[in-house]
Amino acid sequence: MSDQACLYEGKAKRIYETDDPNVYRVVYKDEATAFNGEKKDVLDGKGRLNNEISSLVFSKLHEAGIANHFIERLTETEQLVKKVRIIPLEVVVRNVAAGSLVKRLGLKRGERFPEPIIEFYYKDDELGDPLINTDHIAYLKLAADEELSRVRKDAIRVNNVLTSLFKEAGITLVDFKLEFGRDENGSVLLADEVSPDTCRLWDEKTGDSLDKDLFRFQLGDLNKGYETILTRLGGVQQ
Amino acid sequence: MSDQACLYEGKAKRIYETDDPNVYRVVYKDEATAFNGEKKDVLDGKGRLNNEISSLVFSKLHEAGIANHFIERLTETEQLVKKVRIIPLEVVVRNVAAGSLVKRLGLKRGERFPEPIIEFYYKDDELGDPLINTDHIAYLKLAADEELSRVRKDAIRVNNVLTSLFKEAGITLVDFKLEFGRDENGSVLLADEVSPDTCRLWDEKTGDSLDKDLFRFQLGDLNKGYETILTRLGGVQQ
Repeated sequence: MSDQACLYEGKAKRIYETDDPNVYRVVYKDEATAFNGEKKDVLDGKGRLNNEISSLVFSKLHEAGIANHFIERLTETEQLVKKVRIIPLEVVVRNVAAGSLVKRLGLKRGERFPEPIIEFYYKDDELGDPLINTDHIAYLKLAADEELSRVRKDAIRVNNVLTSLFKEAGITLVDFKLEFGRDENGSVLLADEVSPDTCRLWDEKTGDSLDKDLFRFQLGDLNKGYETILTRLGGVQQ
Repeated sequence: MSDQACLYEGKAKRIYETDDPNVYRVVYKDEATAFNGEKKDVLDGKGRLNNEISSLVFSKLHEAGIANHFIERLTETEQLVKKVRIIPLEVVVRNVAAGSLVKRLGLKRGERFPEPIIEFYYKDDELGDPLINTDHIAYLKLAADEELSRVRKDAIRVNNVLTSLFKEAGITLVDFKLEFGRDENGSVLLADEVSPDTCRLWDEKTGDSLDKDLFRFQLGDLNKGYETILTRLGGVQQ
């Protein structure tokens, strides 16, 4: 399969064609980036951890009946997914105040929200992925109204499933970023990845970060945090 | 009346109590500020122009049946308004791409929107009045859902009335900021001011700015622009 064309190289993944025109192969890279690519490093083993965790999470979401692009884990660093065209929105779900929102609204880090807060960011590196509202989305024609309500509904369902999943592992799901895509029939599917690169995850007891904040703010060994998450979730699912 | 207590001093206005506990007197100041107070100046006559224009606009909005706080123009620089508690939201309505949105979304200045874009900013100087969404508004309890739909509906009605009013004066209403308040019964009323301090207004033919951008970006004589607006709107209405 390695002679297939690389269609896209992102900060953390490469996407390859396969013999099936509706299937992509995703290869998780060992690169870590933060602050819109300003901070970069290579961390051996990170690709494997993200692939394993994302495969596990997407399987659980399938079990919960949430439509997503995941087909199967292929190797330690590879998975097969359904081909989708990504909707250029970063859908952020927040359960606890952390990150950019603390500064934006003047909140106390760690404040728990009674209802999850959903935010849409315009996925555009040059613009720095700005926060946008539904009127901006409509003007930019990023998603139709029905698609957006579907995305919002699915984001809340994903939050419910993942909050429980992580809670059982002694981990608080603070916030996370989702991306959605349209398949060949125009159906909206959860896509991209769900991993400690895209979630803020705190040890429920100690409050320690187990996610990419370890790298962002040099809080500790990133791979150790990611390994803790994978182990507590029950390890590799074959 | 001048011995009444000054309740509040903002960047462009002072608010005084009156003998009627449900009525405030607003005095428009000659001060101009921009960029969250970083740029400041005193421009003789600006207070008068804003008071006259805002009085005229609010009268027109009353005629159109849009509930607002305006009672009457008192003097060249003063008006009486209904007492309200301001909802800490800056409601921005945009018809044409200009200002911060051009940068945020990577638009071309002057692009006309097929539908007006409504934005909510959290009115908080210390936070720099950040853009927020309806989930943030709910969490911060800034306005109830019903209040927010009322605000949105009224903002669109105001836009319709003002777009026509300015069009008849050969002026394009590019965008503007509204503030709403709650009166003693909890009813939501349009409040604050509608003036070239809070609207972006372009000469329909030349495209020249007639509003506070004259001061913000040193494009020309602010009072001359404001005077043009007042004259074209039909001048002082007694």
